[in-house]
This record gives sequence, structure tokens and C-alpha cells, in this order.
Amino acid sequence: MQKLIKDLIQKNNTKILLIVLDGLGGLPVNGKTELDIANKPNLDALAIQSACGLHIPVAMGVTPGSGPGHLSLFGYDPIEWQIGRGVLEALGLGVELKKTDVAIRANYATIEDGIIKDRRAGRIPTNESRKITERLQEKIRKIDDAEIIFALGMEHRFAIVLRFPEPLPQGSASIKDTDPQKEGKPSINITPETPHAERVARIAERLISSISEAIKNDPRANFILLRGFSQVPDIPHFEETYGLRSLCIATYPMYRGLARLIGMDAPAIKGDIKEEIDLLKKSYNDYDFFFLHVKKIDSYGEDGNFEGKASKIGEFDKLLPEILSLNPDVLAITGDHSTPSVLKSHSWHPVPLLLKSPYVLGGTCKAFTERECIKGELGIFLTVNLMPLALANAGRLKKFGA
Amino acid sequence: MQKLIKDLIQKNNTKILLIVLDGLGGLPVNGKTELDIANKPNLDALAIQSACGLHIPVAMGVTPGSGPGHLSLFGYDPIEWQIGRGVLEALGLGVELKKTDVAIRANYATIEDGIIKDRRAGRIPTNESRKITERLQEKIRKIDDAEIIFALGMEHRFAIVLRFPEPLPQGSASIKDTDPQKEGKPSINITPETPHAERVARIAERLISSISEAIKNDPRANFILLRGFSQVPDIPHFEETYGLRSLCIATYPMYRGLARLIGMDAPAIKGDIKEEIDLLKKSYNDYDFFFLHVKKIDSYGEDGNFEGKASKIGEFDKLLPEILSLNPDVLAITGDHSTPSVLKSHSWHPVPLLLKSPYVLGGTCKAFTERECIKGELGIFLTVNLMPLALANAGRLKKFGA
Repeated sequence: MQKLIKDLIQKNNTKILLIVLDGLGGLPVNGKTELDIANKPNLDALAIQSACGLHIPVAMGVTPGSGPGHLSLFGYDPIEWQIGRGVLEALGLGVELKKTDVAIRANYATIEDGIIKDRRAGRIPTNESRKITERLQEKIRKIDDAEIIFALGMEHRFAIVLRFPEPLPQGSASIKDTDPQKEGKPSINITPETPHAERVARIAERLISSISEAIKNDPRANFILLRGFSQVPDIPHFEETYGLRSLCIATYPMYRGLARLIGMDAPAIKGDIKEEIDLLKKSYNDYDFFFLHVKKIDSYGEDGNFEGKASKIGEFDKLLPEILSLNPDVLAITGDHSTPSVLKSHSWHPVPLLLKSPYVLGGTCKAFTERECIKGELGIFLTVNLMPLALANAGRLKKFGA
Repeated sequence: MQKLIKDLIQKNNTKILLIVLDGLGGLPVNGKTELDIANKPNLDALAIQSACGLHIPVAMGVTPGSGPGHLSLFGYDPIEWQIGRGVLEALGLGVELKKTDVAIRANYATIEDGIIKDRRAGRIPTNESRKITERLQEKIRKIDDAEIIFALGMEHRFAIVLRFPEPLPQGSASIKDTDPQKEGKPSINITPETPHAERVARIAERLISSISEAIKNDPRANFILLRGFSQVPDIPHFEETYGLRSLCIATYPMYRGLARLIGMDAPAIKGDIKEEIDLLKKSYNDYDFFFLHVKKIDSYGEDGNFEGKASKIGEFDKLLPEILSLNPDVLAITGDHSTPSVLKSHSWHPVPLLLKSPYVLGGTCKAFTERECIKGELGIFLTVNLMPLALANAGRLKKFGA
């Protein structure tokens, strides 16, 4: 489908703004959802004039992680393009990954006579693990031709990136986790699952022994376990595919990292929605497509904080007029997945969406809520279809066939 | 997709109950459908709290048989997994098929000088054909290494199963029907359509000549015609796929047979819905998934009995509180296809569905009818997505990707 869309692309001067309110959709408590109780007059007014609907990130019943949730918003089939756990971890820790990288989730563990006593090294405090990790980075900079990059995490967690001089063939990171998943067992030896993975496997073995040697005297963090070996996917770039110069505006590193994987510009910013809107305004003339990510709504959902989630939606609503004053040709406001407070986690529920452009029906929904969006002109559809729809509304897709 | 779902399965103690009201959906007479006029306060109350929608068993415009209708409810792509006519016939006659079987639809015919005079042997009464078939079973028990099993049908109809010592390769039952479909022609010779089918073809030839020899003096049923040669498909088991211990509760043999094909337990029971509910209660602690099949609603639809179909829906409704008292974690009530009384047959129309769990929006439908279900949060979707949705609502699917 993305190939078909690519062939239909035509350029113009329109601006598309995709606002992702992370974890937007919810479930009712006493009959009302977070969106139902949120104070959001601007979103509601917008919904009345917009094309509304709900979208399904991966498939019915399937709860998406943030990776598949965003890739499908960007028009990439999330089943075809699976981002490895190591890659996501490294992106989340702020590493700027390159196509030549293999990324690994790592954690400190306690080993005794070859047996894992504690898979999390007693959850050592972050300031302790930071010191150990910095010491390791000083000692271990290269193994063979692979540059070794350590990325600090929280407590016992960190990431390791093996940066090669050139991209490796597909399958080069097919290596089993060394984590036995249970205490009282030895760690699993590095096991390549394809012949292509031999090169990375040899380096990983030497990496483990170098690290073990360096930290063997630490009382708790005297060993490491590795999981989620993964290559940076050779994924088509957003601009090549859609002809859109694109900017990611996100305060959390993982979302910037995901956006960079598909070639978006994603400058590091700190702060909250206000700082994001500042960057949007400042950069508005320089790009065609803007992905603006609002994290906090999801965080409150994950905490099970129903009112908190609703109030974060309200906070965004207050700032919405500032965004509207830019008058983008196409404005889509939605989430990357639902995060109902009652579930305290991502969920499989379709995500509410409003899409505003001069070329919509409108007039089908009275407010921006899950139940009103069901009445919308877009129905319930797979998320991967949102990009073509936005492009069409921006006049950026030619006719298919004569 | 089923492969993706299998990878996401996690087990817990939840119970899923799927109630199939066979042939549920209908069409209006004087503006109202069978569901509109049915007296069903319990179903209506449930619909208000449930996720509602409509599902399409195979594809838009395609009327499903009972095989594809049920397979898609169980999450199997009905286009990928086609159950042969011979297999369905044998299942319907109560044969417990094994993976080593080839099943054939058979009927008695009248032949004269090598020409078929009556393709149905004058529709001989069942008590006559039963005697002939029992006599055949006594005489013919084995051909080569294939055990021969006759299954009694109605009037001129019966089924024959060839049971081999081991499963045969794919394509082994690709043999043309011997029925010329018109009187006044000879029967078609056994014709294997692939080299794999030679073995079964040779046995079928010997079977026809043994049977013809045995019945040649019967005034009407002096020959047989064979159709729908088919192998039992090597279909993934339900429990392997979903991790659910599953029980089929059905009074009709064909539905039990279909369920057994995918490895469900399906004890023979007689009676009606009450006996089915008794079995459900008695077995409730021993299984995770229950498929409860209610036949009569379809039968009245097939007879074109509009009020009769509505009253059967009402009868089920009266018993619903007993089922609800079990308090299953996920309850889905739907059909395997629509059977509008005005059509007197299965139809292509989407099938109404209600799905109750603690994790639905609800509040979108006022009753359990076709028109109200259109307003539901599930929209109109392919039936094959119902199982993932039920599993998600039961907390039995992990997150996809990080």
C-alpha cells in the first residue's frame, strides 16, 4: 500500500500537522470515559467541523507498543516493520542510532560460581550503575571493528550499541537472549540463530568477558545479561516516500529516535507542550509535515489516574487555539494507542481521531469522545490508512488510474 | 494473523463463552426484522452494556456455509481453511473423523445398461436405504489398507469414509465427482486430478465395483454416485493456537464434528438449549472456552417462518439469565451467518454481535437488533477478528512490540 501511495505523491505547499496525544482513548468509569469528563471546549468544537473516526493500530484485539503505534501513524505496516527491543531501548535512552548499529538491552546482575543470584543486581541505585557504566565506557571503546557505545539507563538497566563501519546483512542480530529469565541458573551462552549472526556473536562474547572482567569485584553488579539484540531496520524514509520535509517535536527521546529512524528531523527539546508549540511555530516555514507528540496523557493513564488523564487532556485543549492560529491545511489529532486508566496500560481499543481540512463532511459528531467518534465519517479503520488520508486532504495525492 | 495472535498468547484463569445463535441475522418484513419483533428483554439489556457490531464471515456479498461460518468465528481464515463437502457430510452424519481419513458424499442411484436413470434412486425411504447400507458395511470392511466406513443418511444419501493407516499427502483426495449431474448419462469414471490422488482413486474404483456387485439386484438402489472427495484438513488445533481448553456444546453432530476437527472436546448430547446449559454448568470449571451452539433459530429461518424464528430467539432469551449467572469474563453472542426468513436460506448479510466484558465502552446501542448493532463500538468487521478481540478482553494477549 505504501508503495502505491508513493507512486501517487505530488508536491505542493500545504502543511500537515499530526498531533499525537499518547494513549488518548479510554474506557468508562461510571459510564464516562476520560474524554467524556475532560474540559475540552476547543477539541469538541473542532470535532464538530472535522472528519472523525477511530483507528486500529495493528489489528483488532492487538495492543500495540509505542513502536508499532507510531509506525502505523506514519503509514508503515507495523507487522512488516518490527522494531527490535534493543533498538527501542537505545532510542529511549537517547542514542542516535545509525543504520550500521546493532542495539542490545543490558542489565547488571549478580553472579556467584557461575549461577545468577540476582537478575537485577539488587536493583542498584541509578547513581551507582551510572558510575559503573561510565567506567566501562572508558575501558571498552572498540572490539574488532565495532565501536562500543554504552547508554545509561535507570537502576540496573542500560543499553549497548555495537556500531559497525558498514550496515550488516539482515539476520546479523539474530542472537538468543543470554538472560535465563530465572535466578538459580547460569546465563545462556551467546547463541547465533543464523550464520549471518556469527560476526555479532563473536563480538558479543568478547564484550561479555571484557565487562565481566572489569566488574567482577563489584559486590552486586558483577555480571551482565543481554536481551533483544536487534539491527536498525532498513526502513524507507518518510521524505522519500511522501515527499514531505518532516519535523518531529517530542520531549521524550524514544519518540524522537523513532522519528529519526525514518529520517525525520528531531531536535532535542526539553519542557512540555508549551516548549513543543514554541518549536512548532519557530519551524513552521521550514517543513511540510509536523509530528507533535504529547506524552503526559499516556503517563496518567498508565498510572491509573483517571482524573489526571482527563485534566491533561484539558491542559492540551487550552493550548489548542495557539496551534489553530497557524492554520495548517490538514490537522489530525489522535493517539498512538488507547491507554484506559482502568487498565493502567496500553490497550487494544480503537483510538479516537479528528481530521480537519477544507475537504471533510463534518457535522456528524457533537464532541471529541470515543462514542461520538463512532458516528464519524471515517468509521473504524486500520491506522496505517491515516497518512494516505492526510495526504489526500492536503492535495498531495494524484488520481489513481485514468 | 492467527500466527501473530499465537505469538501473543498469555494464559490466565478467565473464561470465554461464545454463544452461536445459528442464522441469527435477518431482514425486515413490514420494516421489522425477526430480531426487532422478538421478545428478548435480556438480550436487549445486555446489548446496552456491551460492545456491539456486525461481522462478515467470509467477505462482503459472500454467503457462508456452516463450515466457513464457524471456522471464522473460531479465528480461522475460512478462505485458507476450506472443509471439503465429503468431510462436512460425514461430520453431519456423526462420524468421528481422523486426520488419516478421506470422506465422500454418496448417494444411491438407479442405473440401466450403464446409463443413470435416476440420480436419487427414486428418493428411496430412509428405512430402506438403511438396510442396504448396513448390508454393505457388513460385506465391505477393508480395501487394500483402507478401512471402509459407511455412515447412514436420509433417503438416498449417505457418506463413505476411507480410513488409512497414516495421513495422506495433500492432494490425495483430488478426484472428480462421478455424478454426471444429469440423468441419461453414464456415471463419470474415477478420475484423479493429481498424481497424489492415484492411491485413493484405485481404492474408490474397487469400492464402486464391490458396491455395484452387492446391490445390482435392488430394483431402485442398484448403483452409487460419489461426490466431494475430501481429506480432513491438517488444521492447527484451537488449544495449541490460543492456549484455551475448549468445550463444544452442540446437539447437532456436524457442529461437534467441526469443533473436533480443531481439537475441541465435544461430547454427544441430546435435547435442546436446556440440556446444553446443563452441560455448560457441569463443565464450567474444566474449560477456558465454551462454544455453545443453538440450532433452531436457523432452522425456522430456512423454513421461511418469520414469527417462528423470532419466537425461538425469545426462547433463548428466557434462558439467558441462567447463563449470565455463571458470570463469564467474556461473553459473545452472535451467529455464524444470517438466515433471513424472507430468503429461506443462509445469506451474505453481516451478523449482529454483542460482546460483554469489563473492558468495553458500551452505551451505544439500545437493543440487540441489526440496526442498533450498526451504531456499536465494534463497527462492521471480518468475523475472523472476533477471537483476537475476545482474547484481548479476557486479558489473554500480550502487547505487540515495545
